[in-house]
Amino acid sequence: MSAEYQRFSPRGTAAEIEEGLALAPKFDADGLVTAVVTDAGDGTVLMLAHMNADALALTIETGFAHYWSRSRKALWKKGETSGHLQRVTDLRIDCDQDAVWLAVEQTGDAACHTGRKSCFYRRIPLGRAPSPALEMELVDGERRFDPAAVYRRT
Amino acid sequence: MSAEYQRFSPRGTAAEIEEGLALAPKFDADGLVTAVVTDAGDGTVLMLAHMNADALALTIETGFAHYWSRSRKALWKKGETSGHLQRVTDLRIDCDQDAVWLAVEQTGDAACHTGRKSCFYRRIPLGRAPSPALEMELVDGERRFDPAAVYRRT
Repeated sequence: MSAEYQRFSPRGTAAEIEEGLALAPKFDADGLVTAVVTDAGDGTVLMLAHMNADALALTIETGFAHYWSRSRKALWKKGETSGHLQRVTDLRIDCDQDAVWLAVEQTGDAACHTGRKSCFYRRIPLGRAPSPALEMELVDGERRFDPAAVYRRT
Repeated sequence: MSAEYQRFSPRGTAAEIEEGLALAPKFDADGLVTAVVTDAGDGTVLMLAHMNADALALTIETGFAHYWSRSRKALWKKGETSGHLQRVTDLRIDCDQDAVWLAVEQTGDAACHTGRKSCFYRRIPLGRAPSPALEMELVDGERRFDPAAVYRRT
């Protein structure tokens, strides 16, 4: 807790949090903020991830995206395994400081573990109530890499 | 639970969830998926919100963004109070189907409750370890509306 206060500002009043220029992130009950990641070139939303205090501090300090893997319960430098690093060109925080937005240059043009550029490769059709018969549309399903070759799960 | 199964497909294997075209959202322990909202015109990330099954179904059916307010514990049609509706032009879901991306036409060009276009109006400087002395930079701080006038909290 004391380490947190050395790196970030304490949470203040709602006005201070929303209007101030001090970085006072609101980590949730699991110690995380949500991170939205977009392509610095064309604005595509690439992925959504989470950061704990260490991941946020490392991202700020190094300019390379670090996250907290909720499934593996581990700090994670994006691209550590796959080589697909994310260089951050712009980092912003939202009004209540519980979410960050990273614009990144994505090595290999593939942010998704399935090998695709973006995790958001399926479109939900609009205009009628959803049912199990609803069929989504594949959008840019092209794989930039073979996940089986990159992530050897032996 | 049975209502859920009438609207959405059951979760299948990882391959079905990631590669299939059936909509099988993974609602978290609170019954929510995360929603990233971008401006359909210029790609700006406007806000981050959450949807329960009803909010997602209403968004799909009507083409207008609906969310679940975690603070008010209520279903929320965006713009209901402020008039700042969001017409969805593109709706996508991510690989593991626990997050959606909405591209929207934002009435009033203001998505943030502070009156700004985007909730992400502050930039975090990169390249050195964060400390309480770190000062963020205001980016597009212009208010499109006066929140005190729009949200009368009497």
